[in-house]
Order: sequence, then structure tokens, then C-alpha cells
Amino acid sequence: MIVRDFNKLKNTDRDVKDAQWSSVRMLLADDKMGFSFHITTLEAGSEHTFHYKNHFESVYCMSGKGSITDLGTGETHEITPGVMYALNLHDKHTLRAEEELVMACCFNPPVTGTEVHQADGSYAAPATQDA
Amino acid sequence: MIVRDFNKLKNTDRDVKDAQWSSVRMLLADDKMGFSFHITTLEAGSEHTFHYKNHFESVYCMSGKGSITDLGTGETHEITPGVMYALNLHDKHTLRAEEELVMACCFNPPVTGTEVHQADGSYAAPATQDA
Repeated sequence: MIVRDFNKLKNTDRDVKDAQWSSVRMLLADDKMGFSFHITTLEAGSEHTFHYKNHFESVYCMSGKGSITDLGTGETHEITPGVMYALNLHDKHTLRAEEELVMACCFNPPVTGTEVHQADGSYAAPATQDA
Repeated sequence: MIVRDFNKLKNTDRDVKDAQWSSVRMLLADDKMGFSFHITTLEAGSEHTFHYKNHFESVYCMSGKGSITDLGTGETHEITPGVMYALNLHDKHTLRAEEELVMACCFNPPVTGTEVHQADGSYAAPATQDA
């Protein structure tokens, strides 16, 4: 059994930060769960465009307020606590945080922890898909 | 993109209830994400022994207070907001809710939605592992 505490992982090397967001990697590929699990915080007033071409991701809003626009369809959905979106079609999207958003995120295949967002908003595919 | 709201799924057929716990199935196998995602509420004062022989599960505490005992090692860990446990060894365990616990749970392989806990605390394996 793996037991980890978000509060103890904040500001360690498992807390990945980029422009106006940070993400605590609670589970990564080397935990061999078949998915990774992250707690991601998006700063109030920030806007982010991502396109996970190589991953499925689900995102559950634990606190805050914002919106997500599906750039394929143009549809916008409100994000409030209890709302989940799942990028089952590798949907390119823009996420806006009106208030600070704290989100519980699952990735399949699992993120290894070394990815950075590429210019196209994606993470590179893992070296092996069966990690 | 799939968008679902926990608050709208409460008390629908996606809200599975058993003795002293309920679980809203936010994502299931037929969503084809490769994992399922559930928001599970355990009643204050309740105790649960589970043994997911056929699944990996991670559980993140969003609110409440309790503990988990690994029945293989005898170790007990406190559960408070921010603590996650991951059953990477299909660990048989007892979960206790001192206060109502609300947990974000990921299962791999994904739960289909029709499982019930068997006498041994497990969910049956899915008919296919690649759902």
C-alpha cells in the first residue's frame, strides 16, 4: 500500500510548477497503478490551453470556479465543485480559473513526472504505453 | 468531452449505495477512459473491509477523518484531507470513518457499474481487461 499526503508533498520535487499552475504528483507511472493521479491548482485569473493527444485525462473540481471551452465544438461548460470533465476524445480545450481551481486529475497512460507541455499543449507519449 | 456533475448524479442510478457507504460513478468502463472514477461517501462511525483482488484502486480524501489498516502488515494510517492511499498490491484493508469521509477513487481496470462486493470484499474481474 502506498500512502502519501498532499500537504507534505507541496513544494517538494513532486510539486511541478508552470506558469500560473502547479500540480502535486500523488501517483506516477512508476507506481504501476496503470494511471497517474495529480492534485492541480490553477491560479485565479489564469487561462490555459491544453491538448493531450497522447493521454486520456479526467478532472474533478474540488474547489473554485471557472469554465472549460471545447475548442473542437466551441461549447463552454461551467466548472464548480462537483463538476468533472473527461477528455475522452483527446479534446483540445481552454480552461479558465475565475477563482483558484483545485482539481483531482487522472491520466491514462500514467504521466512519468518528467513531461513538460509541448508547444501544441500536449505531453509527449510515454516511451512505452504499458508502464 | 464528457462533462458530469456530482451534485446532479446524487440519488440517480449512478449513485450506488450499500451498507453505510454510497458511491457516485462519475466515469465507468463504457466511457473508455481506461479507468473509472467515483466519489465515495462513507458514513461517520462506519467500518469497511475490502479486498480488490482484481483491481488497482487509489483513494484521495477530500473531507472527513478516519483511518486505514493494511491487513497484510497490520499498519494503520490516519486519513485526513489530502491523504491518498493506493492499493498497488491489491492490499486487503479495513477503512474506518470517524467522521464522514468523502473520497475521490480511481479504479483500474474500470468498474462497469454492475459490480457488488463479493463475500471476500472484492469486485469480480471485468469480462474483458481491456474495456
